[in-house]
Amino acid sequence: MKSRIDQQIDFLVETDRLKSVERMTSPIREERKENSAEHCWQAILSAIVLQEHSNQKVDMLRVIKMLALHDLAEIDCGDVFHYAKDQAEDLAAREEAASIRITSLLPQDQAAEFMELWREFEARETPEAKYAHSIDRTMAFLMNSQRGGGTWRTHGITREQMVAKNQHSGEGASAIWEKAQNLFDESMKD
Amino acid sequence: MKSRIDQQIDFLVETDRLKSVERMTSPIREERKENSAEHCWQAILSAIVLQEHSNQKVDMLRVIKMLALHDLAEIDCGDVFHYAKDQAEDLAAREEAASIRITSLLPQDQAAEFMELWREFEARETPEAKYAHSIDRTMAFLMNSQRGGGTWRTHGITREQMVAKNQHSGEGASAIWEKAQNLFDESMKD
Repeated sequence: MKSRIDQQIDFLVETDRLKSVERMTSPIREERKENSAEHCWQAILSAIVLQEHSNQKVDMLRVIKMLALHDLAEIDCGDVFHYAKDQAEDLAAREEAASIRITSLLPQDQAAEFMELWREFEARETPEAKYAHSIDRTMAFLMNSQRGGGTWRTHGITREQMVAKNQHSGEGASAIWEKAQNLFDESMKD
Repeated sequence: MKSRIDQQIDFLVETDRLKSVERMTSPIREERKENSAEHCWQAILSAIVLQEHSNQKVDMLRVIKMLALHDLAEIDCGDVFHYAKDQAEDLAAREEAASIRITSLLPQDQAAEFMELWREFEARETPEAKYAHSIDRTMAFLMNSQRGGGTWRTHGITREQMVAKNQHSGEGASAIWEKAQNLFDESMKD
């Protein structure tokens, strides 16, 4: 039986793979695609900086834990383009299986805590999960608006598609969602 | 006068540059160098996972805020190899100036809070700062031990140098420091 610290190190070694998961978006000033590990750091920093705009008072530590963990399933499943998610058959089930596989490297109590956080994020019902989703969605607006439309333009995303896929982010933080729409309109106006 | 949310977005756009700061270490399974944004995510996840090993009870939200912010000065100053830090003249002063420049993009109250966190981390006196440092130092052990010695081997770092530059991390988490030394010994034994 491995010690707790050895199990925890196994988990950290495995999750290092998130640095190799390529996203659709690029860093603002680079041509390469960004990876999910960088994205998670930026989401955490943004959640801290934008906290006052959450619609409801949130437990920030819980929000940050969700954001630190929310993309781990991509180690097995890859990053699926937000606008294609509905077409990805069984994606939710595959992502849950991946999250179970990866968190199972941890001591049992931590694996259970992390799966609970992951499921809470996915269910998008608590104030913390809603705010974390709002922040997660906002990252693409931050990148694309600074890159002349970025992936919205390359994939021909219309305003209607953008609203349909993102308006739930207003449930977590309506001021951020309003700002996000402005960023879209400004960067797509010509 | 810009609105608070516009100032916050300016800060997030500027700090996106952390994705372009190259570190000495590489991700475990890649040849490229890792960047400081990925490193910050991994440090935050590690702080969460290894919390039980902190020598003192810590406010985890404060630890995470420090880790999310601690490398922002590298946007102006670059990442300085840990074993060369003492030789880098005026580095502390330049890093403080960089942190002030970058946090000044934020609303004044947040800029003050972030600089306070940054200075607390640098001073390494509170339980939170000591634990955050312990975690920050441990990341190189995680990477190098999985890469047959990594930068320790390429730079010919001796056990004595390693201990001299890292033993302070035992002040934050002695169990992690003990494990880190084992990882060094294991990966450098032949």
